[in-house]
Amino acid sequence: MNSEITPKEKVNQVILPSELLAHWQGHRVLTRKLIEKFPDKEFFGYTLGGMRTFAEMVEELLSIAGPGTKEIVTGKTASFDEASPKGKTKAEILELWDRTTEEINENWSQIEVGRFHDEIKSFGQYEGTVQSAILYFIDNEIHHRGQGYVYLRTLGIEPPMFWDRN
Amino acid sequence: MNSEITPKEKVNQVILPSELLAHWQGHRVLTRKLIEKFPDKEFFGYTLGGMRTFAEMVEELLSIAGPGTKEIVTGKTASFDEASPKGKTKAEILELWDRTTEEINENWSQIEVGRFHDEIKSFGQYEGTVQSAILYFIDNEIHHRGQGYVYLRTLGIEPPMFWDRN
Repeated sequence: MNSEITPKEKVNQVILPSELLAHWQGHRVLTRKLIEKFPDKEFFGYTLGGMRTFAEMVEELLSIAGPGTKEIVTGKTASFDEASPKGKTKAEILELWDRTTEEINENWSQIEVGRFHDEIKSFGQYEGTVQSAILYFIDNEIHHRGQGYVYLRTLGIEPPMFWDRN
Repeated sequence: MNSEITPKEKVNQVILPSELLAHWQGHRVLTRKLIEKFPDKEFFGYTLGGMRTFAEMVEELLSIAGPGTKEIVTGKTASFDEASPKGKTKAEILELWDRTTEEINENWSQIEVGRFHDEIKSFGQYEGTVQSAILYFIDNEIHHRGQGYVYLRTLGIEPPMFWDRN
């Protein structure tokens, strides 16, 4: 998608589509590390303050990232099925995480820079623009991952550093 | 800073400087709501898993936002003094929060769109670009605020909704 971006345009933009993609995927690398840090049992069973398990939060993220970016590309309303289990083991979840990584890349390659200000309704209900929807997807991941950090800490497990995204 | 941005440029950018500012300030509105939700005692004294209190996290955010954006504008290395207390009461912290809101706006108005890809060293040590530094400031706030949500939940206090940023 960057073939049309000239150096002049590059310096006059806050962030390029390819940079925002790399930013998100970097965050997803860190979230993946967090999933790996959880013991299987606690991933699916541990919770604090009546909140969801980290597995349930991750299932929400998986319900958003692939379908949400696909919806942006196709314009076809995506269904939001966070409640349906995405895997019975951490290994299954991680496999789906990696498939989603590819799906995001594939969908992203079809989003022209001129589309980021298009008005859309994510999952048929959340009004915004392509840009605000994608920022919401990323921010929501950071938010829940921050909660996963507290879960790990209270389990006595050292989480990865916040800047560790490679 | 948007006076030089024509409609043509607008549609060919992921996000405008003014939009990124509004995005950040929206997040800061939500973080402010979280601070307000904490009882004074728990704000300064409650912690989980050996982590910092929410007050300490907020003091970190205050050490970053104003000085970090000022450093971008002036090019003068900012000192990072997250350890120094920013206030003895929640009211004092909230006052500083609001002053920081103005500081960010003031600094932001001096960051031209062409500067977002400039290479900088935040606080004299963190290498990146203006853009990656600002995203780090925002992401770090979302991250710690997510942890504040867990603190509130375990205290039996209902936090504000994640999308409540007005």
